[in-house]
Amino acid sequence: MLTPVGLRKHRRTPFKAGRTRTIAEQWLRTILGTLREQSTITRTEILGRTGLNGASACHALQHLIRAGIVFKAGELQSKTGRRREILRLNPEAAYLVAVDLEASPIRFALTNLLGDLVCRWEENLDLREPLELAKIANGVEMVCRSLARPQRERVLAVGMSRPGVRDSHGRVTALNLGWRKFPLEENLISVLNLPCFVQNSAQSFIMAERSHGRAHNCENCIYIEVGKGVGAGVVANNQFLGGHTQVEFGHITIDPGASDLCRCGKRGCLEAIASGPNIIRQYLESTAASGVPPAAMQLADVFDRARRHDPDAIHVVNRVARLLGIGISHLVAMFSPELIILGGYLVRAEDLFMPGLREELSLQVCDWMGHCEIAISALGIDIGLKGAASAAFYGILNDPRLLRTMCRLGNSAAAVSS
Amino acid sequence: MLTPVGLRKHRRTPFKAGRTRTIAEQWLRTILGTLREQSTITRTEILGRTGLNGASACHALQHLIRAGIVFKAGELQSKTGRRREILRLNPEAAYLVAVDLEASPIRFALTNLLGDLVCRWEENLDLREPLELAKIANGVEMVCRSLARPQRERVLAVGMSRPGVRDSHGRVTALNLGWRKFPLEENLISVLNLPCFVQNSAQSFIMAERSHGRAHNCENCIYIEVGKGVGAGVVANNQFLGGHTQVEFGHITIDPGASDLCRCGKRGCLEAIASGPNIIRQYLESTAASGVPPAAMQLADVFDRARRHDPDAIHVVNRVARLLGIGISHLVAMFSPELIILGGYLVRAEDLFMPGLREELSLQVCDWMGHCEIAISALGIDIGLKGAASAAFYGILNDPRLLRTMCRLGNSAAAVSS
Repeated sequence: MLTPVGLRKHRRTPFKAGRTRTIAEQWLRTILGTLREQSTITRTEILGRTGLNGASACHALQHLIRAGIVFKAGELQSKTGRRREILRLNPEAAYLVAVDLEASPIRFALTNLLGDLVCRWEENLDLREPLELAKIANGVEMVCRSLARPQRERVLAVGMSRPGVRDSHGRVTALNLGWRKFPLEENLISVLNLPCFVQNSAQSFIMAERSHGRAHNCENCIYIEVGKGVGAGVVANNQFLGGHTQVEFGHITIDPGASDLCRCGKRGCLEAIASGPNIIRQYLESTAASGVPPAAMQLADVFDRARRHDPDAIHVVNRVARLLGIGISHLVAMFSPELIILGGYLVRAEDLFMPGLREELSLQVCDWMGHCEIAISALGIDIGLKGAASAAFYGILNDPRLLRTMCRLGNSAAAVSS
Repeated sequence: MLTPVGLRKHRRTPFKAGRTRTIAEQWLRTILGTLREQSTITRTEILGRTGLNGASACHALQHLIRAGIVFKAGELQSKTGRRREILRLNPEAAYLVAVDLEASPIRFALTNLLGDLVCRWEENLDLREPLELAKIANGVEMVCRSLARPQRERVLAVGMSRPGVRDSHGRVTALNLGWRKFPLEENLISVLNLPCFVQNSAQSFIMAERSHGRAHNCENCIYIEVGKGVGAGVVANNQFLGGHTQVEFGHITIDPGASDLCRCGKRGCLEAIASGPNIIRQYLESTAASGVPPAAMQLADVFDRARRHDPDAIHVVNRVARLLGIGISHLVAMFSPELIILGGYLVRAEDLFMPGLREELSLQVCDWMGHCEIAISALGIDIGLKGAASAAFYGILNDPRLLRTMCRLGNSAAAVSS
């Protein structure tokens, strides 16, 4: 089971309340995490993956089956004639709300426990005003309305994927949402009637790739988002990395000699060179006679011009590909991932960037650093929502009160459906 | 308990052999790890730190006390009159051999379970020849001889701290030992009569700082070694990071514009600028009239000259301090550590490098990345040996066979000493 590091700390608290009971909660947590990752699984496979002993796993599975959260989906018969039950997570045992604040318009979805999207909603951003939390509350309300009223109490938590940075006091600065040192989590409590688990977008993206994408079962993998900003979500030794804050990949000084000024105030940050707005800036700076008024220039225009052999556009693209390659090589050196998944504008400009990026990586990564596969994300625009749903799911598992509620509700769902 | 990640994978194997028995081994492992970290501890504190339930912890502690590995060191009486036993790890229940191959001459020590050095040995390196494993075997033999023959069977494992890099096939390249793609661990099995746990020096150093130094109880900390090479040992969320290989801090391209050629073949690596030999090289390149023949120039000479205001030496020192500062800021951005400990030549040239390094860090680390303390290591030349002893200790905990042997031997030790 993948453990979101930010949530791990809650684990030890319940042991003080009632020790015998909560060890069982740890078993439930481990088994449910494994079931979500594997979709179908036998008891033997659960033992192998979780490291639980037979009695504990049997006890926890009985409880989950009785509660209607896990069900028997069939049987496998081995050559020796021994039958093995195939177990599955009941996806409709509870619901989650996923919120993606990185997208524009901001997006909402109701999902089942597996993260399958049941219903969507969008809210436009007014770029002149800071995003109001009432808008988020409204979006959450709208997707919940797709459920019949008795079912609504089965919506257990909200998962949220946010852009920007979070300081050590928990205040979020996300310029495109108009937030500067905004105490997001503190304020969310007062506007949402549901517990909310917030994480940054890059962490969401790697969570989504782990549960629905290419990084399935991959113990060391990284998602790199290159869009309005540059971010990285890291899974190292099967754990999400985040430290106190998050992996600030965009703000490493990738070229100490560069004059590119970053919005963080430093010069030569990877984000100051490789983010979308900075590609446009570099292109405009390099050419006085672009033929397009600066304000109307789009990232796609720069890419089009590079494809039509505009030397200025090609120069910018090559510089970005090279420095991104160097930046990625740092991640390879630090984390030795088996897989790096690239997202953001690289998805639609693979032809422009990938040859230069791969060439630079081949120069920068020594053979003794181990082999690392580089791939482009194929999850599309729902990646943020799927990651946010994962954050909500693991948030529930790590909160003893919510876990108990899920077991209770699963039971009533099973009673209704039977 | 701190889990060395490289060893963690062994954990799940025993569950397949006999599940009920090995859960108890996990309890022993967790408790012994905690006891080594805390030196004295009460039962309540053990429960708080390990997250074990009361019955499991009691069962495991009884077993360890009976086996003579843990003993009651006294009692605490609370105001309510309730008595609490103080427990300690019996340091002499077994012995470890620590080997430090980073040092020159290479160093050996017999240590007790807490990593206290009982006896030392040194072997000179013949720089013209690759280091022979027979020399290592001899050193191990020599420190074991300090024990009376019946006690020698209580030496359970060797921990080894090695320089250089290890590729994904386990082959070690360490130029100052004369090894190129040398299958170290494979060959050690045939020359040593003891199981051997090898890790790179930076990992050893951070392990030593965790158990004996400033990083005690610190969940996110980094040790940076700047000497013949540049390396980093990282603890993130209470786990040692290593990926398939290790954190290759020395080989990130810190300045893409730099022409400094690294021994790895790349240009602009941090090691190609900040390592000791490269400081000498830069100084010699910058001055034709040094007055000292190039071959005789020592790192201490460059430092002396910088202290005597030689502008060329000052220029080199300032450049190194700046780029080291940028490199360290990358680690802060990636891992958000609470503490970074610096070692190697920085210990004796703090006056020269630290002002520039701190200034660069203040420019590079944004306030929202969280506060990180920077300190100089105070563990001295035994740091590699202490780290190697930790590697051996955690290696034993993670090997069910060795753990059982330790319990058996502890018992006989208790019988002898009583």
